[in-house]
Amino acid sequence: MDIQQKTINTIRTLSADMVQKANSGHPGAPLGMAAMAYAVWADAMWHNPADPKWRNRDRFVLSNGHASALIYSLLHLFGYGLTMEDLKSFRQWGSKTPGHPEIETAGVETTTGPLGQGVANAVGMAIAETMLAAKFNRPDYEIVNHRVYAFCGDGCMMEGVAAEAAALAGTLKLGKLTLLYDDNDISIEGNTDIAMREDVGARFAAYGWQVLRVEDGNDPQQVLAALAEARRDERPSLIVCRTIIGYGCPAKQGTSGVHGAPLGDENLLAMKRTLGMPEDMFHVDEDVYAHLRECADRGAQREREWNDLLARYAQAYPDLKKEFDAWYNMELPQDLMNDPELWAFEGKIATRATSGTMINRLASRLPNLVGGSADLAPSNNTYIKDGGDYSAENRGGRNLHFGVREHAMAAICNGIALHGGLRVFCGTFFVFSDYMKHAIRMSAIMGLPVTYVLTHDSIGVGEDGATHEPIEHLAGLRAIPNLKVFRPADGKETAAAWLCAVTGQGPTCLVLTRQGLPQYQEQGPEAFKGGYVLSDCEGAPDALLMASGSEVEQILTAQPILAAEGIRARVISMPCMELFLKQDAAYQESVLPASVRARVAMEAGATMPWYRFTGLDGAVIGIDHFGASAPAGILFKEYGFTADNVVATVKRVLGK
Amino acid sequence: MDIQQKTINTIRTLSADMVQKANSGHPGAPLGMAAMAYAVWADAMWHNPADPKWRNRDRFVLSNGHASALIYSLLHLFGYGLTMEDLKSFRQWGSKTPGHPEIETAGVETTTGPLGQGVANAVGMAIAETMLAAKFNRPDYEIVNHRVYAFCGDGCMMEGVAAEAAALAGTLKLGKLTLLYDDNDISIEGNTDIAMREDVGARFAAYGWQVLRVEDGNDPQQVLAALAEARRDERPSLIVCRTIIGYGCPAKQGTSGVHGAPLGDENLLAMKRTLGMPEDMFHVDEDVYAHLRECADRGAQREREWNDLLARYAQAYPDLKKEFDAWYNMELPQDLMNDPELWAFEGKIATRATSGTMINRLASRLPNLVGGSADLAPSNNTYIKDGGDYSAENRGGRNLHFGVREHAMAAICNGIALHGGLRVFCGTFFVFSDYMKHAIRMSAIMGLPVTYVLTHDSIGVGEDGATHEPIEHLAGLRAIPNLKVFRPADGKETAAAWLCAVTGQGPTCLVLTRQGLPQYQEQGPEAFKGGYVLSDCEGAPDALLMASGSEVEQILTAQPILAAEGIRARVISMPCMELFLKQDAAYQESVLPASVRARVAMEAGATMPWYRFTGLDGAVIGIDHFGASAPAGILFKEYGFTADNVVATVKRVLGK
Repeated sequence: MDIQQKTINTIRTLSADMVQKANSGHPGAPLGMAAMAYAVWADAMWHNPADPKWRNRDRFVLSNGHASALIYSLLHLFGYGLTMEDLKSFRQWGSKTPGHPEIETAGVETTTGPLGQGVANAVGMAIAETMLAAKFNRPDYEIVNHRVYAFCGDGCMMEGVAAEAAALAGTLKLGKLTLLYDDNDISIEGNTDIAMREDVGARFAAYGWQVLRVEDGNDPQQVLAALAEARRDERPSLIVCRTIIGYGCPAKQGTSGVHGAPLGDENLLAMKRTLGMPEDMFHVDEDVYAHLRECADRGAQREREWNDLLARYAQAYPDLKKEFDAWYNMELPQDLMNDPELWAFEGKIATRATSGTMINRLASRLPNLVGGSADLAPSNNTYIKDGGDYSAENRGGRNLHFGVREHAMAAICNGIALHGGLRVFCGTFFVFSDYMKHAIRMSAIMGLPVTYVLTHDSIGVGEDGATHEPIEHLAGLRAIPNLKVFRPADGKETAAAWLCAVTGQGPTCLVLTRQGLPQYQEQGPEAFKGGYVLSDCEGAPDALLMASGSEVEQILTAQPILAAEGIRARVISMPCMELFLKQDAAYQESVLPASVRARVAMEAGATMPWYRFTGLDGAVIGIDHFGASAPAGILFKEYGFTADNVVATVKRVLGK
Repeated sequence: MDIQQKTINTIRTLSADMVQKANSGHPGAPLGMAAMAYAVWADAMWHNPADPKWRNRDRFVLSNGHASALIYSLLHLFGYGLTMEDLKSFRQWGSKTPGHPEIETAGVETTTGPLGQGVANAVGMAIAETMLAAKFNRPDYEIVNHRVYAFCGDGCMMEGVAAEAAALAGTLKLGKLTLLYDDNDISIEGNTDIAMREDVGARFAAYGWQVLRVEDGNDPQQVLAALAEARRDERPSLIVCRTIIGYGCPAKQGTSGVHGAPLGDENLLAMKRTLGMPEDMFHVDEDVYAHLRECADRGAQREREWNDLLARYAQAYPDLKKEFDAWYNMELPQDLMNDPELWAFEGKIATRATSGTMINRLASRLPNLVGGSADLAPSNNTYIKDGGDYSAENRGGRNLHFGVREHAMAAICNGIALHGGLRVFCGTFFVFSDYMKHAIRMSAIMGLPVTYVLTHDSIGVGEDGATHEPIEHLAGLRAIPNLKVFRPADGKETAAAWLCAVTGQGPTCLVLTRQGLPQYQEQGPEAFKGGYVLSDCEGAPDALLMASGSEVEQILTAQPILAAEGIRARVISMPCMELFLKQDAAYQESVLPASVRARVAMEAGATMPWYRFTGLDGAVIGIDHFGASAPAGILFKEYGFTADNVVATVKRVLGK
């Protein structure tokens, strides 16, 4: 067999060996997609294994992440640094080869596994490329000019998040995006016919994609011809590759049985014989390494050429080159945190409005800040004034219009963040954070600095009623690891939240009111600690009052009423529990002294998150039922979010 | 103007008046869809306003629920019982006319507002119709034979949940489903062109739908002609109706400004003048009422004819008629709860397997139990053996194949439950409950008895790694009001959970292990209380140990180790916090005595839900970070889910 075929078969045997050794994993997809992978990695894709972070590399996304053995085989064979030992540690504790690809492994562009997410990530990467190209490219200096390749299977194609992303990609004419669809007719429950009879190609054509068909996905030449077609079109391209799941394994290929379980020793041997490959485990012929080293060398040469181009660019456009580096390095203006203009707010304003003000104040200081909303920009206050509207015709726009596609929006923002060079935020109503919950989780798993602007944060929504009033959402988001959830009480806390979001690591959720809130003189940077004493009583407190967001007003109002009855109550604002819990024990004790057991928390959301602070002897005033349709003021009163109720509850807790 | 046009214009003026009086709401969509609504409600749809629960009525779903004023106008004019006072109380506290339609209002078939959900609900209703028809219809006795109509707008069309549902509806050839698309080119951020340039009709054709186009959605005759075409085809039909948002309001029609804000007094008057309608508020001419009374009378006549048919059916097929009533009345076998076969489990079994056993045991006792998985039936153990596979060709199958479409799956199950006649469950991996979070919320808002089978419930997933290991999901689901979340520790608790699900009100989540668990002798029906003493110590307890699911094993193992060190520890199994918190105070105190403050909870999930029970002096052993890829046993050990850690933590809490 020729070296191409031998390389493809080596990808197959390595992948199947990994699954067999781990006695766990998914051999079917790697066997079926090996030729597609070879065509992309060895030929179409511009990448330099010696520098996985080369800024102008083509991106590769394995959206069907259960095919992880495929990408690990590629990373090993192309010389990305994965050793044979790493392959043998597939799916084991502490390995670089976890069950689904994770960005911690060099060469993995995005963590995938949850189906459909990767397709949307790829759309985000392609959007980022166009934005950065519009900003930085100059005639003869296309320093940002790369493609995005994504693989996906039937599962991704059935997921709504991928459908949303594909519809937007078509609208935006993301011509450098190529999606290779592993069309093998098999999913876990059997033939896809039982659940999926659509014409996927026709669907993508309806979205505005170029649709190409490869009759034999095992033939790299056919795949390469389609990839060439894809490069010639200004639309994003879908390449429908007809493949056979588990290709090469005679007893199992073409069946769902090969999807998610090891082949077994006998079938593995039979496969190797069928493919004409050596029977020993983890076998790679030296000429395969040599062949791919040539590919890697071509990639290294391309990066050298790009480096030369960039050097000339630095001569021709020194200021732009500085900006280019600043954007990719996520540089911040000096002393951003202490810029007084960022902290100035007056009057009764909703935190969605103070957030809108912050977005615009930050946008003028952070030129690589971009973002948008799921068709709610006027309500979410997410519009960057004078930022322009990003579209197929205007790649320089900073305002993204995601349409009513929350899930894809969040996953696309993950892709933009993964690409590098841009800071990104996105907005919707808080209640619809549900629709994008899993993409938020993926931001957190990957530690991506995506900022979620979630407005209309409680029964304060009012007349829109129960369907639009978040209840459980604060609890649900706060329980996600690696995520900061801010619910600011006023403009200064909103400023702190935004500054924390743009300067820190990982994702941040800003949970913001629809209704106006007063401004409190006292706070500001204290909010960086997550929780702090907003208004202390005289002397040792009898009771601790805690709240976030709009309910800080009620506990503040209750404080003097309690004082008049001889009860000393400390008022604690807790805009971000996660940050408060990261403070040292002494600080936490200084805010919440262990000796004070009369603790009352109020928040217009599920009570669950607060018991950690109120304990068995305190009380939480929350809302553990759905809301209703009525003016917000009536709902707050009917549901007990009043200073009077704070007072009554404190007295009850104190046994008075 | 003729009576048809006058009626259509009355729908418009009433809707706009409601929004104006409430000074809040969405006039644009009702104005644009009034003629479509008239065509469906006054002609195509078989319904009897005097009996909104007529079993064989056509169903109507307003997926773009912000157009609620439209449906309230219809319900008033057709005589469903909504009074003029109700219309005037639009969006007010305690009214029957909340901001988005809720099923509590007679004639509203499903609560809508969160976009896309209604489309999937409608698909579920259409599936239910075919299943029940297959079961009960006999030659000349089509006692189940009705259509499902749904309205949706651009927003619904952009949502992935609707795309997933539509793809499945095409696959399943749900010919009685008709979706009317309010194609008005406007969404909140402006012209849909900014985010949506796809050819929606071509997309639906790719799904396998008949696609019909109405050039003027304001012309009821054109809509009626399309509705007739829809009835003649065996495929589901999409009717793309070209409309103008805010039609009739000269200053605002065709703009996003008319979407979500009152027209204002002047514009409202201008609209009435343009439409040639009286200027007073809430004006309805008597001949409009009379015209629609005729429609209502036709509906009543149709129900009488159906009742006659049913009476003859009862004669011809008395047993089937009994079953028909039993199914629709959700009757249960007598003494189901005490059936010993349901409680029998032996050996080390995963709770996903005991759940699979329960599904099959229940399926033989509850013939209207149907369900399926999002392409994970073999892993979720959701398959009803000998139940057959539901498809376009086999409407009698009890196993639904949803494809990898979690969000639509859950929303479709809501539709099946809303339809009546069937009990429904659905399954996926617990981590992917995220994808369907909002549909679960809708189950809870509506109180629908949908059962969610969520397997692979923790780091016990093992090798698949962080992306597949739920962490925050228990907290997130438990915070949803009206939802029961069970995490059973063994077979008997699984039995209790399933029995609770099929006999109780509202939705239930079953959170189940991948890995095998021991069977405990002691429990059984006690699990109905949500939390109970599984193994008590001798004498008054020094410490309380709590856990759910797989971690019950660790706290049980720790008990004798602690006893050997002189520490009396009570072991509490807490399979369902919601039920435990519904028990009276005396019972809760009997399980968790207030005086015992050394409380340790263990659960392989976020710690948040447990602080309510452990207080400031106890400890929660949980996992507030993401998992990893490794064999499950290693993860449990590395992350401290061991009996030794329980022992050490108890001693620390006790200061020993």
